[in-house]
Amino acid sequence: MREIEGGSVTSPRSFRAAGIVAGIKPSGKRDLALVVSDEPATGAAVYTTNRVQGAPIGVCRQHLADGHARAVVINSGIANVCNGDSGRADSQRMCAATAQQLGLQAEDVLVCSTGIIGVPLPMDLIESGIPTVVAALRDDGGPEAAEAMMTTDTVTKHTAVEVDLDGSTVIVGAVAKGAAMIAPNMATMLSVVTMDAAVPPGQLQQLLVRAVGRSFNCCTIDGDMSTSDTVIVLANGAAMGGIDTGNDPSPQASETLAQAVEHVCRKMAMAMAADGEGATKLITIRVIGGRTEAEARQVGLSVANSNLVKTAVFGNDPNWGRILCAVGYSGVDLDQDTVEVSLCGTKIYGKGKGIPFEDGVLSEAMKAKEIDIDVDLKSGSACIEIFTCDLTYEYVRLNAEYTT
Amino acid sequence: MREIEGGSVTSPRSFRAAGIVAGIKPSGKRDLALVVSDEPATGAAVYTTNRVQGAPIGVCRQHLADGHARAVVINSGIANVCNGDSGRADSQRMCAATAQQLGLQAEDVLVCSTGIIGVPLPMDLIESGIPTVVAALRDDGGPEAAEAMMTTDTVTKHTAVEVDLDGSTVIVGAVAKGAAMIAPNMATMLSVVTMDAAVPPGQLQQLLVRAVGRSFNCCTIDGDMSTSDTVIVLANGAAMGGIDTGNDPSPQASETLAQAVEHVCRKMAMAMAADGEGATKLITIRVIGGRTEAEARQVGLSVANSNLVKTAVFGNDPNWGRILCAVGYSGVDLDQDTVEVSLCGTKIYGKGKGIPFEDGVLSEAMKAKEIDIDVDLKSGSACIEIFTCDLTYEYVRLNAEYTT
Repeated sequence: MREIEGGSVTSPRSFRAAGIVAGIKPSGKRDLALVVSDEPATGAAVYTTNRVQGAPIGVCRQHLADGHARAVVINSGIANVCNGDSGRADSQRMCAATAQQLGLQAEDVLVCSTGIIGVPLPMDLIESGIPTVVAALRDDGGPEAAEAMMTTDTVTKHTAVEVDLDGSTVIVGAVAKGAAMIAPNMATMLSVVTMDAAVPPGQLQQLLVRAVGRSFNCCTIDGDMSTSDTVIVLANGAAMGGIDTGNDPSPQASETLAQAVEHVCRKMAMAMAADGEGATKLITIRVIGGRTEAEARQVGLSVANSNLVKTAVFGNDPNWGRILCAVGYSGVDLDQDTVEVSLCGTKIYGKGKGIPFEDGVLSEAMKAKEIDIDVDLKSGSACIEIFTCDLTYEYVRLNAEYTT
Repeated sequence: MREIEGGSVTSPRSFRAAGIVAGIKPSGKRDLALVVSDEPATGAAVYTTNRVQGAPIGVCRQHLADGHARAVVINSGIANVCNGDSGRADSQRMCAATAQQLGLQAEDVLVCSTGIIGVPLPMDLIESGIPTVVAALRDDGGPEAAEAMMTTDTVTKHTAVEVDLDGSTVIVGAVAKGAAMIAPNMATMLSVVTMDAAVPPGQLQQLLVRAVGRSFNCCTIDGDMSTSDTVIVLANGAAMGGIDTGNDPSPQASETLAQAVEHVCRKMAMAMAADGEGATKLITIRVIGGRTEAEARQVGLSVANSNLVKTAVFGNDPNWGRILCAVGYSGVDLDQDTVEVSLCGTKIYGKGKGIPFEDGVLSEAMKAKEIDIDVDLKSGSACIEIFTCDLTYEYVRLNAEYTT
């Protein structure tokens, strides 16, 4: 697997993208993105499990019912959630307008919106922006599309890798925005993954679910789950003679491809955690020795969502009691006398007791931008890595400012 | 039910208490508390469900196996968690030393510790403090005991009520400390409830579980559950001729008593939420229309533990999207088109849409010290009230300061 420097959704063959200023964001920044496959493509998606869901999600479900899609149109600034029937109609109009410009069917177009909730989309701005974004499509436009997806993000997020697959060289790329939600921008985790491999719809869905489970679903900023979180994948087979060659990838090629998708998704998830609202540090919580992956995840998320752990990391405070406490209340059955905990590579708890360490040395180590917390549950062989960030004054400032 | 002004655990007859300076806290503040019934008493307790538990909890379980207890000895400053076998021995020594001074059996004494975890108790200070605290016992010593339980609390927490029960006037009192955990003081929620009613052990346990379910278990500061949370109740029957009269309370009297216990526990839980670390406001989340109380609780806790809701309240931002979002990801099956949400008495969401309101007026209303969030799930008749506080710069400061 080879990283492609500056790679994105336009790194795979026959994908173009663009990001333009449609005027939705008062800041005047880019706010309308489009990713398009120039050839037929299979598509799959994974959505938020929040019971309150944005209108675009319902439209994506409909348009992916046949397992095919060619384009994703995304606006930032307004999320189109809680707008009732007119919200649903607006999401459909975004697809129809994009399809018309691209010479496609509306069902070939997927849609995402991120930003304020409960405010109607400015359809005049969006419908006048769509011809502009179509005209701006470029085969290196992925980073601009990533920029047009941003809400509270401070950096654009995109990546791509190249893998060898049954004699072809295949590229998998991604753009993403997120995470954490900020008012009135209820910012959402969105990601679009593209590839020039040919993958049948059912297999593409499986591949995405697996990758999301080990990447985006391992990323938490503040435990709040958005109403619009969406990850979409498009596979156009351009590196392999199109999607309808009838040649399914070999098992080994499928595994290689799955790893490539997981890799780009993990890079996006880590980039989101590191760019969490107000974050100064990326925290990686590695849980090993779990009976099941689900249990390991439960422990990891419990630690990752602990405000006390996150403030301790912000303050360079090697306060292992907070980590152990969050492990304990995770709901997973465990033995406090066998669990082991390490912080920045130093084992600080084992055999039911704290292990003496030099406060000053460990606190100094915690000034790094990347902090590792390792938990060994000693109950099995399942493991997981969870990504989060510290909790800072800036998080409170960003989220307490009167902005409605 | 009549409130007793300045009431506490010593308001019920034949209870004495004290709080002294044993020298455990570097600050020189009171840190050793004792509550004693001068007559035989039944006892019951409810503990943290954290899998990592403090040594005192194991000792309390043993000593309450017979359903009777006479005294509770409590130190603050050090929590005696994660100290292995020697920690368990220390908790037993605290009971034995207290029993010796009071002329009781060690099994009659319960023990709690709150403060730093992973540091051994200074047993010399505690054992020399115990004769002092016994000598200081007074029949109005409840508030001093409450003071000696404090860690990061900014106010003492105590209350009492009087009720008429089968022709007797019975008093129920309480002291409490908490909540939220601060390093290195992993502060714990502790409460001792006393009453001069006579209640058999099994019934006392039921009564406490019910009260805790509608009070302390409805209080959350940051979602972190301590390793030492404990609520203890002692009932000495002093208002009714002792505990062994053979006269069980009538069903009506039992209900009156249950309401009195729930009342004092709720007052303590609300006092804890209002005194949460860095809090400027008490937030009460009332969920109605749930299919079950458990579902209503799940929704209420989801809103209460949302950092985004808590920072919005801090910032006087009527950001209903965050409330609705937390309702949505609570895991409870609900219909976003029927749910209703009110903030400070103003209905802001219903029929799947936001209801227009005056931003400025509602923001002004949110400057109150007590904020109500009402959620109607429209799926049944179960309800719950959850207490929490806002998330502020001060919370981050308190918890990020390097203190280990």
